[in-house]
Amino acid sequence: MRLLLLVAFAATPWTTGIPLAAQSGPDVARAYRESNEASILRDFAELLSYPNRAFTPEIREAALYIRDEMRAAGVDTRLVEIEGASPLVLGVLEVPGATRTLGIYVHYDGQPVDPNNWTHDPFEPTLYSAAMEYGGGPIDMPDAGEPVDPEWRLYARSAGDDKAPIAAILPVLQAFQGEGITPTSNLIFMFDGEEEAGSRNLGAYMERERAVLDQVDIWLFFDGPAHASGRPQLTFGVRGSFGMEVTVYGATRNLHSGHYGNWAPDTGNVMAHLLASMKDEDGHVTIDGWYDTFDPIGPEERAALEAMPDWDAELKRELGLAWTEGEPETLPERLLVPALNVRGLTSGNTGALARNVIPNEAVAALGIRMVKGNTVAQLRALIVDHIRGQGFHVVDEDPDMETRLRYPRIAKVTGGAGGSIASRTSMADPLAQSVMAAASNAADRAFGEGALVVAPGMGGTLPLYLFTDVAGKPAVVVPVANHDNNQHAPDENLRVANLWYAIDLYASLMTMPETIF
Amino acid sequence: MRLLLLVAFAATPWTTGIPLAAQSGPDVARAYRESNEASILRDFAELLSYPNRAFTPEIREAALYIRDEMRAAGVDTRLVEIEGASPLVLGVLEVPGATRTLGIYVHYDGQPVDPNNWTHDPFEPTLYSAAMEYGGGPIDMPDAGEPVDPEWRLYARSAGDDKAPIAAILPVLQAFQGEGITPTSNLIFMFDGEEEAGSRNLGAYMERERAVLDQVDIWLFFDGPAHASGRPQLTFGVRGSFGMEVTVYGATRNLHSGHYGNWAPDTGNVMAHLLASMKDEDGHVTIDGWYDTFDPIGPEERAALEAMPDWDAELKRELGLAWTEGEPETLPERLLVPALNVRGLTSGNTGALARNVIPNEAVAALGIRMVKGNTVAQLRALIVDHIRGQGFHVVDEDPDMETRLRYPRIAKVTGGAGGSIASRTSMADPLAQSVMAAASNAADRAFGEGALVVAPGMGGTLPLYLFTDVAGKPAVVVPVANHDNNQHAPDENLRVANLWYAIDLYASLMTMPETIF
Repeated sequence: MRLLLLVAFAATPWTTGIPLAAQSGPDVARAYRESNEASILRDFAELLSYPNRAFTPEIREAALYIRDEMRAAGVDTRLVEIEGASPLVLGVLEVPGATRTLGIYVHYDGQPVDPNNWTHDPFEPTLYSAAMEYGGGPIDMPDAGEPVDPEWRLYARSAGDDKAPIAAILPVLQAFQGEGITPTSNLIFMFDGEEEAGSRNLGAYMERERAVLDQVDIWLFFDGPAHASGRPQLTFGVRGSFGMEVTVYGATRNLHSGHYGNWAPDTGNVMAHLLASMKDEDGHVTIDGWYDTFDPIGPEERAALEAMPDWDAELKRELGLAWTEGEPETLPERLLVPALNVRGLTSGNTGALARNVIPNEAVAALGIRMVKGNTVAQLRALIVDHIRGQGFHVVDEDPDMETRLRYPRIAKVTGGAGGSIASRTSMADPLAQSVMAAASNAADRAFGEGALVVAPGMGGTLPLYLFTDVAGKPAVVVPVANHDNNQHAPDENLRVANLWYAIDLYASLMTMPETIF
Repeated sequence: MRLLLLVAFAATPWTTGIPLAAQSGPDVARAYRESNEASILRDFAELLSYPNRAFTPEIREAALYIRDEMRAAGVDTRLVEIEGASPLVLGVLEVPGATRTLGIYVHYDGQPVDPNNWTHDPFEPTLYSAAMEYGGGPIDMPDAGEPVDPEWRLYARSAGDDKAPIAAILPVLQAFQGEGITPTSNLIFMFDGEEEAGSRNLGAYMERERAVLDQVDIWLFFDGPAHASGRPQLTFGVRGSFGMEVTVYGATRNLHSGHYGNWAPDTGNVMAHLLASMKDEDGHVTIDGWYDTFDPIGPEERAALEAMPDWDAELKRELGLAWTEGEPETLPERLLVPALNVRGLTSGNTGALARNVIPNEAVAALGIRMVKGNTVAQLRALIVDHIRGQGFHVVDEDPDMETRLRYPRIAKVTGGAGGSIASRTSMADPLAQSVMAAASNAADRAFGEGALVVAPGMGGTLPLYLFTDVAGKPAVVVPVANHDNNQHAPDENLRVANLWYAIDLYASLMTMPETIF
């Protein structure tokens, strides 16, 4: 496969072609890192100092910084901009003679911050001798050449999610540039500026840049944390997600529980019966057809599940749980079927604000997690049918008096438009197998033999379906952040050892042999 | 029965003894009212101008005003005071030769106000040509002798709840005084200053004044509104009330619904199963023993229920309800059995604040309404046993880690101490029969033949049990306020016709014949 986009690479050293270097890419990257640890950390801190909330004016500064750093590392990089969207940063590194193209996805935007909840300013990166919760204290950034302890943590918004990959990509490219190492694939880098805000313009960006992106053979998603055990992992899918809200009605107003209690509909109890009808006490969804909606996994995925570390007992201990839904199935197995949760319940008041009323409505916010094969429309329809089956007249806005007087049970159902779609790449895909081999090598080297955990799917969401389902490419999630990086929360941080692993890993992926493919 | 308390009635005209006056008490009171409507209204407005929130320093001024007005009407009246409590106003009118004593309870305190929500200052009584919602507008107070329209409304806090009785008692006493009418019973007046704050010192006050209060043969509770149909009513009981709160637990923290959904306990669903297990979809409580806890009603109560107006259809229309709990039983029937309602539900968030979490707990506030025979301890124990029966380990504070790891289902149950106790007076009581006859006469006269509604019990709570269960006397609730008086709400008001009815009624009660007794 040839890269159609022909760009003039001024002053680029990537001209030596494919022949394997005497020195391996991973060795070169590691040697470079070991000689430049303090500088790499300082560069990371500079990157973290750019505020990066999607749709803010200042996020463009972060995008420009990344563009310039990528250019300096020899990648032809530009901003793609849609009005009202955060810029997409797109870089292309064409390797003469390469027969395949890796797409590398990173997002440079971050979750919103409330600085009051942070120990330090979230955009003033602060180095710690260890994680705060393990007794670490703030230390000065090392000067160039000073030793760096891999257990140090760098605290800042996006340290783990998701600027760490950028901070590791750059030194790998710099190392290769310096030592004349040529990647074994063409590389296309895409830096999304809206992931934490739902990547709502990513589809439009990808459509606009289709001529470039169509050349990608496999997408690597540099995002997410390590396995909860601390071991590195690869993931072949993500779940989709959407929300719905159900409101049930009593009288037109809150009623005095003395004057009307035992007679007026008890909205909390009406809601309780409805929700209880949706899922049994073991966590098995009892909505008709729920488990007939998705694509089954194959033998490779089943084998991967078998090989995963048995982490449930540890997790339960950590989270204070004496049971889990669907026992004895494990968390990784449960992530491969669609989930239905009550993410919020509201009716009247509890605690000091509780009053002697029969609330006039009860509201449940439902969170649905989809797996490969599910669609929002399909699961929404099953839920609505189920609610109807429980005797409810389903409406999409608050009922008027005539409706109230006509139907004993009324449920307003809203939401369920949009949502993010699940994605799963087959582990049998040959390119995916190459990626697994390269990642396994890097993990062996950084964490010890057999360290890599391979998961058929993860529970969270990423806009992976745009790549797998819309663009039709395989995609593998390749996380590097420590599992306890506090992503989305205050005091987000990256463990330095995980940055070093990212450098090993990316060097391995960028120079993975062609033979398997 | 002789009144033990011997008070010197200086300048009191109550010395003529029992022989029936040539002119009946009700006739005299009505004639007096008809000649003095504007003055009675002005006196009511003055009474309403006293701020009367329990436990405020200024409520004592209201108490002193009532004491002075009662004294002027010939009743030996004094303040009884407990430090930190609102004063109790106690008045005694001994009728030489009377063989029975009526206790008359009124409360002079009012619900708190937020003047911002009122059309006029709640303590600047404002006269309207009709209710605001029926198109009435503000009018000047009439001068003495000017005509008064019975459809006028006087707006102020406590106009309906519960100063109207005071504004009707005084003219009745003044009329009797002026015309030499002697009540047919000794009268003991008790004005409670803490009813809207739970009458928390009333038991202590009653204990302190036991020597006086023990002389009462039947208590009349001058409080509450007319029947929803607008017809006057009598009520022979109130429900008791207490609250409980149940918390169920998931993980030690909110969990990401993507990473853990389908595996972590879904607290909303756990709560839904628990609540659904407590009451079926028809509103029948399914807690073992719930309906074996209370005293059954007798044939008089059953007959009264039969005779009550069929108001359910009207109420359902007004409240927008196509069903009610326990159909086809009616509201008055349903008020005679204990009620269990969900008065609040909280877990995570709904609406714009809903997030992709599995909330770490779900909380339900339960409101329990008790009837005669129930105790808080008894119903609380049934509820707790039921929760245990659903497989929950019941605790009274947040579980520690060891507890969490040991029990799959944990419920914290709090509340259920205190509460108010239900009360019911038998309609077969001979004195109660006298009261019914007198009230029926007054209602016939003011509203037309057969207007009086007699209810075995009302849904709300009053501290009636202190009189019936602690002091061991019969007690009847005798409301006069219009049903749409906005009690406890902004723009509280009294319809003038209801004040005129109160005067008829009280005159009838104070001069009811001795023969039935």
